[in-house]
Amino acid sequence: MKYPTGIKINIQNKNTEYGNRGMNLEDDINLSNQYYIDNKIAYIYKKPTPIKIIKVDYPSRSKAVIKEAYFKEPSTTDYNGLYKGHYIDFEAKETNNTSFPLANIHKHQVEHIKNIYENGGICFLVVQFNKYNKIFLLDSKDFLFFISHNSRKSIPYDFFIEHGHIIERKYLPRLDYIKIIDKLLEVQK
Amino acid sequence: MKYPTGIKINIQNKNTEYGNRGMNLEDDINLSNQYYIDNKIAYIYKKPTPIKIIKVDYPSRSKAVIKEAYFKEPSTTDYNGLYKGHYIDFEAKETNNTSFPLANIHKHQVEHIKNIYENGGICFLVVQFNKYNKIFLLDSKDFLFFISHNSRKSIPYDFFIEHGHIIERKYLPRLDYIKIIDKLLEVQK
Repeated sequence: MKYPTGIKINIQNKNTEYGNRGMNLEDDINLSNQYYIDNKIAYIYKKPTPIKIIKVDYPSRSKAVIKEAYFKEPSTTDYNGLYKGHYIDFEAKETNNTSFPLANIHKHQVEHIKNIYENGGICFLVVQFNKYNKIFLLDSKDFLFFISHNSRKSIPYDFFIEHGHIIERKYLPRLDYIKIIDKLLEVQK
Repeated sequence: MKYPTGIKINIQNKNTEYGNRGMNLEDDINLSNQYYIDNKIAYIYKKPTPIKIIKVDYPSRSKAVIKEAYFKEPSTTDYNGLYKGHYIDFEAKETNNTSFPLANIHKHQVEHIKNIYENGGICFLVVQFNKYNKIFLLDSKDFLFFISHNSRKSIPYDFFIEHGHIIERKYLPRLDYIKIIDKLLEVQK
């Protein structure tokens, strides 16, 4: 199966083996977000996949069927929501490389990240390096700094070590990234 | 054409006559949001329409075609974004009735609105009463109060007069709802 680069399709994960759950970044994030909702800590959710609809059929009065549609290049990020009234937004990616390929983040997504940064929101990337078994939160400030000061096509692992925040894997929540948001908010004050 | 209740389809507006633009709430909001972005006031955008994908074909390597999909009942709202770091979220509806039918807001959307309210976000409805040529912003606090204290199937116009905030139509931006958000933030302090 070939999907357009960087476009995630929900049905892909339908048959995820639950034993492997710990290895799948998206599942870990979804579980963490559910934990935050259940414990009234934060409300962060996944956005729908953007689709361009071309043809719709109406076989019955009650149910329209889309017969032709295409995946659109995402112009925003995967997740957004709020924590203590603050706007939160992020994109989550896994990589098997030893650096983070910037092809993972589309031009319109960079624009989106900039807009959030400029309007005082909390925005970041969550990047899982499978090779190093490490997950980092990279704040938009550092991400935007990197891309505006480099012509490189990927962000080296060392940049994450130096500027990123390690997200530990735990039992509950799986990935407690809110802890790091607390730090970012402290700096913003 | 019959769409499932409350589900908006973007392609519907493809042939909107531009002369009528002032009459279309969605166009007015989109123009206002663009004004806010261009003037670096706020960043508020429309979410993709949620779709359930059943069948995808791969006629070529580069382009996947969705051959069967359905419109999902929306579980969130139309618009979200941020203003001065604050999370903003709203649903926009027009009605030809003399009251606002609650069938316009799905059960999952009510849950979404509650979650935002409880996590300190700014959330509201924008309701245009075509009969009265008036547009109101109704804060989530007042909306949630109404539905928890009433078994009525619609919110009377008088409730909007008493608890809502009138959004004036202007040239730029078309609907300056940020002005009202300033008031809501003042009360929240």
